[in-house]
Amino acid sequence: MSRFFMNERETLVPQALEGLVEAHGGLVEVHTDPLFVTRRTPATGKVALLSGGGSGHEPLHTGFVGTGMLDAAVPGDVFASPTALQVRAALRAVDAGEGTVMVVKNYTGDVLNFSIAAELLAETHRVEQVLVDDDLATQKEDDGGPGRRGTAAVVAVEKVCGAAAEAGAPLSEVRALGQDVVARSATLSVAFEACTNPMTGKRSFELEPGRMEFGVGIHGERGIETRAATEAAALVESLVDPLVASVGIRRGDRVLAIVNGLGATHGLELGVAARETRRVLDGRGVTLARSLVGPYVTSLDMKGLSITLTALTDDLVKLWDAPVRTPALAW
Amino acid sequence: MSRFFMNERETLVPQALEGLVEAHGGLVEVHTDPLFVTRRTPATGKVALLSGGGSGHEPLHTGFVGTGMLDAAVPGDVFASPTALQVRAALRAVDAGEGTVMVVKNYTGDVLNFSIAAELLAETHRVEQVLVDDDLATQKEDDGGPGRRGTAAVVAVEKVCGAAAEAGAPLSEVRALGQDVVARSATLSVAFEACTNPMTGKRSFELEPGRMEFGVGIHGERGIETRAATEAAALVESLVDPLVASVGIRRGDRVLAIVNGLGATHGLELGVAARETRRVLDGRGVTLARSLVGPYVTSLDMKGLSITLTALTDDLVKLWDAPVRTPALAW
Repeated sequence: MSRFFMNERETLVPQALEGLVEAHGGLVEVHTDPLFVTRRTPATGKVALLSGGGSGHEPLHTGFVGTGMLDAAVPGDVFASPTALQVRAALRAVDAGEGTVMVVKNYTGDVLNFSIAAELLAETHRVEQVLVDDDLATQKEDDGGPGRRGTAAVVAVEKVCGAAAEAGAPLSEVRALGQDVVARSATLSVAFEACTNPMTGKRSFELEPGRMEFGVGIHGERGIETRAATEAAALVESLVDPLVASVGIRRGDRVLAIVNGLGATHGLELGVAARETRRVLDGRGVTLARSLVGPYVTSLDMKGLSITLTALTDDLVKLWDAPVRTPALAW
Repeated sequence: MSRFFMNERETLVPQALEGLVEAHGGLVEVHTDPLFVTRRTPATGKVALLSGGGSGHEPLHTGFVGTGMLDAAVPGDVFASPTALQVRAALRAVDAGEGTVMVVKNYTGDVLNFSIAAELLAETHRVEQVLVDDDLATQKEDDGGPGRRGTAAVVAVEKVCGAAAEAGAPLSEVRALGQDVVARSATLSVAFEACTNPMTGKRSFELEPGRMEFGVGIHGERGIETRAATEAAALVESLVDPLVASVGIRRGDRVLAIVNGLGATHGLELGVAARETRRVLDGRGVTLARSLVGPYVTSLDMKGLSITLTALTDDLVKLWDAPVRTPALAW
């Protein structure tokens, strides 16, 4: 049994957001009816940046609202898209006259609801979209399906686009930068235990002792293969090598690595994963120029981790390094 | 089975620290042989602040090294004190001529090894100690035993003492401030699942469905009582009310609350806990002036949380709010 700490299921997300404000009331503000989160002090004279999606992935996205990153985040219920009306209200709230870029993870519900919201405002608001589809595990020959899922690369997209918007880049440039980061990024995830349904206390799948699930999603989806669990060194190789190949990273290139905990993975474990990521990249002649290590895109209490690689340019390094002040990222 | 992501057990802590540097190399530096962590750029002309203890509680203490907080952290193996020789080496490294305050959590091994280290340097270095013993669950009539354990109040102590040291407070004042924060603080913890031994994959204790362990420690210790699991509102009351009574917090007082995840507790859950903490304190006429919400003092993958209350003064608020730049805390 794994018990989820809450009151009623229906109030979970709004009450958790009250807690976010308790801790970071100087940075963010929660709007109810409909539910969305904005900066406490709205920005002016810049392109607005907005994201959102199902809850259960915290600190994504609400923890990334603040100077140098998002202007608003729109949270759905756990693992469920926000409604188009929520997104529309947030779009209206953040538009400062320079247009808005929506960062959307590639899931059918999110794509639908964010698109509807933008259409509803088409006559009065300029809204562009960056579609994040970095999850290599869901890559297929073009089958007319929904395509690759969006996972932890969204953090790099939000950081880079946020910095560009803050520096005054126009709408088309912020959008193009975000789509460029997507094209330069890929992610793979592995789980040692599935996440637990808050209501039933049941795991979304079961793993035999000594096995791990390779290529899992962030909503309790099974991966593409159940493999024998290995030590960190071999496991990180099995994640990093396909990423390097997929993004087309070559000797001498510089990359950002996001070593992301999926919920119940400890800081010691993520530290070892970051160390092995450096070692594997060194062996391929690739420079690990920047690292972000921690639980940034979680899947409730999943015990697992993901690694995202983003091929960097001088401009992307500058935008990554630019100051940021949000609940979950600050430098 | 709960698998711990690592290579060999013997290299876990040093390899995890390599990962810390990968992510925060601009802030911290790892010294090996013996193992300790310092700021990348040593401070001068100020009292040094040092802490440490067993690993498995990350980001404590290594994640709190940086401007405005610790000068050094000395990590032992998982749930094991660092050696006196490790502490001595770190004391030597950080002493900038103004003396050093050691922040020590009240565990027999830590108290012994930090004291020996200070004694070994007694002729050449001024070293004072703040002993943190905030865990209300281990309070007993004076039985000659080790006394209350040290848990999450250590974060408040390190933040406040770090700010005072950075502002130029002398050795005796930094020590007195730290001991004052301890006297003004108390903590209670609850677990829904125990932590897992990284080697055996076994939980340190088992809980029946629908039960929770009240008053747990941060090393897999059982609590003082196994209770029926309740919703968040009632549970937070059962944590906060004894803290208010123990610290002697009265109507009109202002407090800091640290709502701390013990490892596998999700951000949504901690958000709800923070919201309920505010509600309970409001009902008692106590002002929740500052909140820190997140996994700061973990116990491997324990699913549980602790609440710490610290009664504030104007001076303590200023020191809490002072700028800090560490891997785990930055504002």
